[in-house]
Amino acid sequence: MNNRTASVAEPIARLIEEFHKLPGIGPKSAQRLTYFLVRMPSEEAKALCEAILAVKEKLIYCSICQNISETDPCAICNNDKRDHSKICVVENPLDIMALERTGEYTGLYHVLHGVISPMDGIGPEELKIKELLTRLKDDSVKEVILATNPNLEGEATAMYLQKLITPQGILTTRLARGLPFGSELEYADDVTLSRAFEGRQEIDKS
Amino acid sequence: MNNRTASVAEPIARLIEEFHKLPGIGPKSAQRLTYFLVRMPSEEAKALCEAILAVKEKLIYCSICQNISETDPCAICNNDKRDHSKICVVENPLDIMALERTGEYTGLYHVLHGVISPMDGIGPEELKIKELLTRLKDDSVKEVILATNPNLEGEATAMYLQKLITPQGILTTRLARGLPFGSELEYADDVTLSRAFEGRQEIDKS
Repeated sequence: MNNRTASVAEPIARLIEEFHKLPGIGPKSAQRLTYFLVRMPSEEAKALCEAILAVKEKLIYCSICQNISETDPCAICNNDKRDHSKICVVENPLDIMALERTGEYTGLYHVLHGVISPMDGIGPEELKIKELLTRLKDDSVKEVILATNPNLEGEATAMYLQKLITPQGILTTRLARGLPFGSELEYADDVTLSRAFEGRQEIDKS
Repeated sequence: MNNRTASVAEPIARLIEEFHKLPGIGPKSAQRLTYFLVRMPSEEAKALCEAILAVKEKLIYCSICQNISETDPCAICNNDKRDHSKICVVENPLDIMALERTGEYTGLYHVLHGVISPMDGIGPEELKIKELLTRLKDDSVKEVILATNPNLEGEATAMYLQKLITPQGILTTRLARGLPFGSELEYADDVTLSRAFEGRQEIDKS
């Protein structure tokens, strides 16, 4: 009999392993989460399970913007008060959450579900680009905001999309690059700093 | 209709909230975990839920050592090959896992399920100390290793237990304090460094 494995009950070992599969959860966090759950009241553990299963059972993809939603079309695409002449293209649904939190943008979205990344074998056909181009056939769209991440893959994807969209006479824009709020010049990287220089703006005198 | 809340499907918002309740999971991690689960195959999500529920349904506390176990007595208390004359007292079941990984110790354990912490209103009666003393009535126990954490509460708890146990003619020991393996003297704190000095040992000439 192996003392080492015998010391951990099988359900504990299994839950630690399951937690460890999740992103950003190392072996130590998996252990801590498992023991937290052991001590948690049963109802709370059940509530967590129900929430997990609800996400798998109730969610679908919006056939227009490809965002995760309970309804098709989703609440954003279906909202007449939003500006249907603008489409903001993002990599994944989390980006929509971040943008919605700002309360700045009232247009529609389109989720690519990834970026072009030859290293990972992801080409344009793996992304929801065809669906985006279908939406643009409708003359109502006047501006496409390419809000992919400001990194290599995100820039490459934005370039690729811009070349497809601009010839259709639709304005394509990209989110401003520059110094993030609360940052310090001293610690800014070279690319960020040169982009901030290039994009400098006259101070509003009003 | 509120655009901001409408943009996040209810099951998503609920799962983010449930994950956020777990220790060490902030709002960003909760979002990332949620979207990971959305894209996870249904069977894997179900496996996670089953593992969570199994932990709640199948685990009990060993009536001897108070560790979490599937059986009573647990696999360690029930193992005749282990040294039943030693009891290592720990704060929680995770400590047993850590000690078992070393493969150094072959005795039994006792889980206090906490430490004495007047600040948090935890006195000796909240811990499994009565159960420990009951075990010591049996003359077979020769050594109690007090392996509570080397911090204020852990030290106080060890002192408290030592005062109860030593008069019974049982050897009480404490894990060695000193510099952790792989650490650098330069960065060691004062207490650790002075403990390492006090506990210095002659180099084995063999």
